[in-house]
Amino acid sequence: MPIRLTLSQPDFPERFIDFLGSKREASVDVQDKVSAIIADVRARGDRALVDLSRTFDRVDLDALGIKVSDAELDAALASIPEETRAALDFAKARIEAHHARQKPTDETYVDAAGVTLGHRWTSVDAVGLYVPGGTAAYPSSVLMNAVPAQVAGVPRIVMVVPAPDGVIAPLVLAAARLAGVHEVYRVGGAQAVAALAYGTETIRPVDKIVGPGNAFVAAAKRQVFGKVGIDMVAGPSEVLILADGDASADFIAADLLAQAEHDTAAQSILITNSPELADRVEQAVEGMLATLPRAAIASASWRDHGAIFLVDSLADAIPLVDRIAPEHLEIHAADADALAARVRHAGAIFIGAWTPEAIGDYVGGTNHVLPTARSARFSSGLGVLDFMKRTSILKLDADALEKLGPAAVRLAAVERLDAHGRSVSIRSNR
Amino acid sequence: MPIRLTLSQPDFPERFIDFLGSKREASVDVQDKVSAIIADVRARGDRALVDLSRTFDRVDLDALGIKVSDAELDAALASIPEETRAALDFAKARIEAHHARQKPTDETYVDAAGVTLGHRWTSVDAVGLYVPGGTAAYPSSVLMNAVPAQVAGVPRIVMVVPAPDGVIAPLVLAAARLAGVHEVYRVGGAQAVAALAYGTETIRPVDKIVGPGNAFVAAAKRQVFGKVGIDMVAGPSEVLILADGDASADFIAADLLAQAEHDTAAQSILITNSPELADRVEQAVEGMLATLPRAAIASASWRDHGAIFLVDSLADAIPLVDRIAPEHLEIHAADADALAARVRHAGAIFIGAWTPEAIGDYVGGTNHVLPTARSARFSSGLGVLDFMKRTSILKLDADALEKLGPAAVRLAAVERLDAHGRSVSIRSNR
Repeated sequence: MPIRLTLSQPDFPERFIDFLGSKREASVDVQDKVSAIIADVRARGDRALVDLSRTFDRVDLDALGIKVSDAELDAALASIPEETRAALDFAKARIEAHHARQKPTDETYVDAAGVTLGHRWTSVDAVGLYVPGGTAAYPSSVLMNAVPAQVAGVPRIVMVVPAPDGVIAPLVLAAARLAGVHEVYRVGGAQAVAALAYGTETIRPVDKIVGPGNAFVAAAKRQVFGKVGIDMVAGPSEVLILADGDASADFIAADLLAQAEHDTAAQSILITNSPELADRVEQAVEGMLATLPRAAIASASWRDHGAIFLVDSLADAIPLVDRIAPEHLEIHAADADALAARVRHAGAIFIGAWTPEAIGDYVGGTNHVLPTARSARFSSGLGVLDFMKRTSILKLDADALEKLGPAAVRLAAVERLDAHGRSVSIRSNR
Repeated sequence: MPIRLTLSQPDFPERFIDFLGSKREASVDVQDKVSAIIADVRARGDRALVDLSRTFDRVDLDALGIKVSDAELDAALASIPEETRAALDFAKARIEAHHARQKPTDETYVDAAGVTLGHRWTSVDAVGLYVPGGTAAYPSSVLMNAVPAQVAGVPRIVMVVPAPDGVIAPLVLAAARLAGVHEVYRVGGAQAVAALAYGTETIRPVDKIVGPGNAFVAAAKRQVFGKVGIDMVAGPSEVLILADGDASADFIAADLLAQAEHDTAAQSILITNSPELADRVEQAVEGMLATLPRAAIASASWRDHGAIFLVDSLADAIPLVDRIAPEHLEIHAADADALAARVRHAGAIFIGAWTPEAIGDYVGGTNHVLPTARSARFSSGLGVLDFMKRTSILKLDADALEKLGPAAVRLAAVERLDAHGRSVSIRSNR
């Protein structure tokens, strides 16, 4: 049974804080193991990749090759059913169209002092995309990571994916081909992250690494941060559904379970002003679980991490939403737009009963790589800007320098950086 | 003597790679110490801050108080000379005016399928700014970090600064007051980062931590990353000056030294097509060092990390610039604008002989917190966006869902996420 709390109950504040602080993932300390793997890849390059892949993935990369050949990628794309190919094409086109609008603009202007200021955006030169292997093959994640990099204009997009027992899901390779990934390597884990950051004989280093992975991958990304850029460290996924009494219990139950089926650590939350709706949703969840293939995972997630919060009015829910800062927020309510406008912290908002979160996972056009575990308080979903960076521009002439110089010389003096001051004053002494 | 290499010399490629890979900072492994400090602050809160500050900073916070009072801040502001106050006001106004142009715009649009897509930017709720203590007091850094947070609309800006022997530079406190920092705490090191991330009885936790610090601070930021957001991990600073034979050797020498005086690990690089200019710059540097207060630091930096690269034409220099990806790039050349436009990787570009980098440190208006140690390949200088995050928005009606639904159902099926598919199909079965 998910927990159920009412905002008006006396112990709500403490219990809500407990809820916010509850751990959904066992934190495994793999720091030292990961450091050793990174050191090994730096020292031995490809040989380390071959040895580590034999150990962790039971695969002989000397036989298969570290690099996935173009022929393999083409074969994978040719192997998928027409209807699947069409769905991937449809998704890709929508993701591309939406992300194209995120391209930033350069700016240069001259201010009243005659100073030219501005900035210029350029893409990262080379990006590495980590894709998890194993049973779960998520071609949609390949699109969500690769398409924004393409839109940003990244000239070299590299994908790494482990091949446990030699196998990579054809769907993942097909999606890579479709999304314009330039190079694919069948290596995973911390060793793949190390290879992307430092390079080996076969894999040239990249400048930024994105994509989700297990504890080893997350720790490796954290350790190579600074040498290369990384995206956020992803945690287990969550949805919060805000609903009034007129909402469909079936829609809500289906959406809570769509979240819960990801992972036993996933979290599904309902906030409503209607205890009756809450009861109906709980019943509907139980009913749907009976026929769900991933019922074991979904029911564990719902039982261990699910939550229902009852409020007097949905307006009262907004502060709770902001404290939870959910990755996904669905709003099923008459005034859904107005409520959405008042939320400050959420990765993505899905407005109204006809916008199931799963649409955003695949074909909505927005990105499904979103900040988890309350990190929407300080970070954004993946986008084009994650694959670009801004160079600032400053240009003065002698007149402008005369205007700005004295204040700079003064501040350099108080900071005791005399050479700073002299670099300004030498120009007016001429 | 700085190294001097010519692009045409046969061993240039290897020697340039060595140069790029050369370490400028001893990497101190303080991981375990920092983990212990963070654990201590989480367990004992304020008591840990008091004990650790006594040990590291020789200060009794039980006597002084962890929080710097408003009266202290006001007194600090009142204590600084009028001319300094005016220079800080001037700098702040220029930084504010430039950063105000970085405020992003929200967008919502309806596409051809009838889907509403968009995004909304909101500020982070609470930001912690780390300011180093000790002899070097940099009020300009307080402005550069706090003003963009103010412009972003961050409602709570907190500053932490260590008080070795009980002392905090009045200039730093004055700048905090001027920049609108809301709370200041006299605590530093990993313990300050831990307090900002996890909170104590006195310091409420923040959502994001920015600002430079020593190895302890850098390691602590890395460890709390995910619990809170962090900015880049700053390394030693560098300047690259690209100059033709007509450039002023004195200007260039002054600017190389302004960089070198920061830190023995700082790096100053000249790339020119004129061996004569290179000689004159070296002579000018030696001459200026004779009278520079921080000559010991600057000469060590220039000797150990300085570099002069000779090229046939400045166009040949562009690929070198991009591989170095300098924090600061100055261009002293007839075609400076055209050269600047061709550079892909640099934190900031200072165009022309009348734009010494020191102007950007203080009063140019652009930010002086810039990516160091080649990280301009994948990251940007500090700006308003660092204190905001983007929530994506999706809204479908029943018609739009009919159009998008089938592809989503198909992709959910191939990813074996049945509950995802059902959350879409249940809505068309009605």
